[in-house]
Amino acid sequence: MEILASYLAGAWHPGTGPATSLMNPTTDEPVATVHGHGLDLGGALAFARDRGGAALGALTFAERGERLAAMAKAMHGAREELIALAVANGGNTRGDAKFDLDGASGTLAHYAELAKGLGDRRVLIDGDAIQLGRTARLSGQHAWVPRPGVAVFVNAFNFPAWGLGEKLACAFLAGMPVLCKPATATALVTYRVVKLWADAGLLPEGTLQLLCGPAGDLLDHLGPFDVLAFTGSSGTARTLRSHPRVVGESVRVNIEADSLNAAVLAPDVDLGSETGRLFLADVVRDMTQKTGQKCTAIRRVLVPADRRADVIDGLRERLATIAIGDPSRDDVRMGPLATKAQQRDIEAGIARLAAATDEGYGGTGAIAPLGVAPGVGCFVGPVVRTTADAAGCAVMHDHEVFGPVVTVAAYDGDAGAAARLVARGHGSLATSCYSDDKDWLARFVPAAGAVSGRVYIGSEKMASLSPGPGTALPQLQHGGPGRAGDGAELGGLRGLALYQQRVALQGDATILKGLA
Amino acid sequence: MEILASYLAGAWHPGTGPATSLMNPTTDEPVATVHGHGLDLGGALAFARDRGGAALGALTFAERGERLAAMAKAMHGAREELIALAVANGGNTRGDAKFDLDGASGTLAHYAELAKGLGDRRVLIDGDAIQLGRTARLSGQHAWVPRPGVAVFVNAFNFPAWGLGEKLACAFLAGMPVLCKPATATALVTYRVVKLWADAGLLPEGTLQLLCGPAGDLLDHLGPFDVLAFTGSSGTARTLRSHPRVVGESVRVNIEADSLNAAVLAPDVDLGSETGRLFLADVVRDMTQKTGQKCTAIRRVLVPADRRADVIDGLRERLATIAIGDPSRDDVRMGPLATKAQQRDIEAGIARLAAATDEGYGGTGAIAPLGVAPGVGCFVGPVVRTTADAAGCAVMHDHEVFGPVVTVAAYDGDAGAAARLVARGHGSLATSCYSDDKDWLARFVPAAGAVSGRVYIGSEKMASLSPGPGTALPQLQHGGPGRAGDGAELGGLRGLALYQQRVALQGDATILKGLA
Repeated sequence: MEILASYLAGAWHPGTGPATSLMNPTTDEPVATVHGHGLDLGGALAFARDRGGAALGALTFAERGERLAAMAKAMHGAREELIALAVANGGNTRGDAKFDLDGASGTLAHYAELAKGLGDRRVLIDGDAIQLGRTARLSGQHAWVPRPGVAVFVNAFNFPAWGLGEKLACAFLAGMPVLCKPATATALVTYRVVKLWADAGLLPEGTLQLLCGPAGDLLDHLGPFDVLAFTGSSGTARTLRSHPRVVGESVRVNIEADSLNAAVLAPDVDLGSETGRLFLADVVRDMTQKTGQKCTAIRRVLVPADRRADVIDGLRERLATIAIGDPSRDDVRMGPLATKAQQRDIEAGIARLAAATDEGYGGTGAIAPLGVAPGVGCFVGPVVRTTADAAGCAVMHDHEVFGPVVTVAAYDGDAGAAARLVARGHGSLATSCYSDDKDWLARFVPAAGAVSGRVYIGSEKMASLSPGPGTALPQLQHGGPGRAGDGAELGGLRGLALYQQRVALQGDATILKGLA
Repeated sequence: MEILASYLAGAWHPGTGPATSLMNPTTDEPVATVHGHGLDLGGALAFARDRGGAALGALTFAERGERLAAMAKAMHGAREELIALAVANGGNTRGDAKFDLDGASGTLAHYAELAKGLGDRRVLIDGDAIQLGRTARLSGQHAWVPRPGVAVFVNAFNFPAWGLGEKLACAFLAGMPVLCKPATATALVTYRVVKLWADAGLLPEGTLQLLCGPAGDLLDHLGPFDVLAFTGSSGTARTLRSHPRVVGESVRVNIEADSLNAAVLAPDVDLGSETGRLFLADVVRDMTQKTGQKCTAIRRVLVPADRRADVIDGLRERLATIAIGDPSRDDVRMGPLATKAQQRDIEAGIARLAAATDEGYGGTGAIAPLGVAPGVGCFVGPVVRTTADAAGCAVMHDHEVFGPVVTVAAYDGDAGAAARLVARGHGSLATSCYSDDKDWLARFVPAAGAVSGRVYIGSEKMASLSPGPGTALPQLQHGGPGRAGDGAELGGLRGLALYQQRVALQGDATILKGLA
């Protein structure tokens, strides 16, 4: 069985100590092992800062972009092999695997394109020169320069490729070296991707390192110019954010955590219209794609009171056609959850929701998956819970069930009331709304936008073009306030800010012009 | 004696419980008292979010700017009274007091001007519309909207006016209501300014509240859309940043903390030249203005080894002319430290430096202040410590002595070596360098800029125009990485970002155009 080694200080280290197995969540069989002890993590971080920082600093933006393009191409070249690993280790359907892998390579390619536009510079200018005195002689100029540290990624289990790709594209282009620690349970794809790049000679020394297995004492070695970029649960986020070293050294932290994303149906929308069908299709896609394991997936569905029964009927009808089971089968549209621990969490979450809501579809989530023996695998079927009282149902706004589960709740149709319910989630990554009524949208969008990182507006004219609200695009900011972690990633060149220091230069106008 | 009341939920509350006295640090006599218990702080925060948020949301940017202009004008109208309070409670000279007060009113006026340019909008657009699909139909647009929470300021003792003004200008213009808690020891000026504005009817209900005295349970009431903006020591910063409520609710935190700001003399500069004289004058100004109690003040002076003796001679000559004593006297140029606690800290800091460095000027800082009886007041004189080995002297890079104290240390003249020494401070608010050599600057500035919030370049042609590196200008970012807190304030409209949520809007291009 494959042993996942860590790529640290320019070499592959198998690690020592007891083995942890990575499992196939469809068959409950091991697919690889990892030995995560005996690694010099402080040395790896120093290697990144010294060698990796210098290697990236020697490249222009355009040259960094060429490397990103080559990484995307290398992934694409190994796509079939990577899909097979994602199916085996992640319980992904082929479609799920492509979503993750193409998300990663597409994001790398997008930043490669942006890099072309930046050309042979190494410093990004921020805004215009500013006259500071009575004459133009004394001047100010803001600029972005790479932080002289290392960016540590602590990534989530659900997107072993995209989670790396989206962060790496920004850090690498910004000029900051990276150490990535994927979630152990699904690390096989991440490991294979990094190995592919390293074997192809695409990684200048120290620019990308990989830690497979536990984080060990990694955080104890962080310093004041480092960045810690985390995607995962808000519980782990709290632990990282209050880590004594992180607090003591003012390590810059970016968090993408829990998010009870809401989808809001406006009163103007007929379920049989283009907009209405988009709404139902988006909810079903977010429930079933990646078995609901997307941080951007819809969890709360807010509908006018008089449409609740119709919405549940519409979801039930569509969900009943989704074949669930062994994701390696061509006829299966939804696979298992990624791990037994996730399965237990989802089942507990469904029970919590059930105590406060009525059944809409799918009972407890227990199912008989296609092509899998009874009791084997980490399967939970799609579940719709429902309530007539969105405001009175605290648990639907507070408890993220990270699987194929939504709560459909009634509201009175008012845009302001809908936005207040959205805010009950305490900050979301992606809020979606469905309306062709511009007045309703003008009241809803700014208020919901104040508590969301992204607002997706489903409407008639974009319905046929939409990727749905659950897809993080490289062009648009990814990250939301409050419970979602108050982070910001992607958004084109905005995504580089996390890995750079903005500095205000102040002095003689001619001298500044020569510098920035 | 005046009792400083708190302005909470639209009324002045004197508080209950034991009195704390605010002292005159020149005479050791009390100037006011505060009773900081028995206040409903949770209620005050809710009042801000509900009433204050709505009141600001009802105003356009231009209208908010008109309020800021009126606040600046009201301060200017009461300037003589405020100067007298700053002299009495802060130990400020008249010049120090003006620096603080005019810094505040100037910043408010600057943002009032910026507001005019934003006109009758309430939402700021961030960048251009982005085509997301093959056609222009599916589009993205980033925008900034006010956060639906309250901004809590926990401010430092050294700038009771400016500390409020610089944060308030940004929050108010961004549309976020404020609760300000000044440092108790010097709260008299802050109190008087807020009272002035409230009495003049310049504060729409709930938009600005004031807490005089201890923070009590204030932080326990913070929520996911609130902002905590702190200026002060890195020790308190650590406590705030790891507060369970702050961590648990992902409260957005901005920190301006300790900073061992370096001034670097390049080898090309003759001390008798314009640039050389600017360098000496800037160091002396930062040591003596506000008795060295500026977060941006120069603490480390890095000079080529063969110039060290001349630099110390130059500083000694200038420092000897500074009259120190009762700041209400016209002939006094430097007053006491703000409190006995500060005096003890500075004396301890000088002792720590003395153990690792040689004397340059001023001994232990003990002096006989003009117009003050022996043993009275919080006086410490200017102190220059010096070392031939900047790299070997850890304490000068690690321990901020927040008073009229610098360490002059030798380096080899190399720009890269200088930048590495600057980085030993683990992140600075303001780094200054003095050179007319463009090649030296081209190597120094980007490297020093990566570890600094601002880099000030002293040179011949700007020497006569310069406010010095220690002045935070509203046009330029204020805040530095690492030890300095990794915060960012001011910088023109950049300063609004802390108090807003950036949201990515995604949908039909025509609908987006109508919304943002």
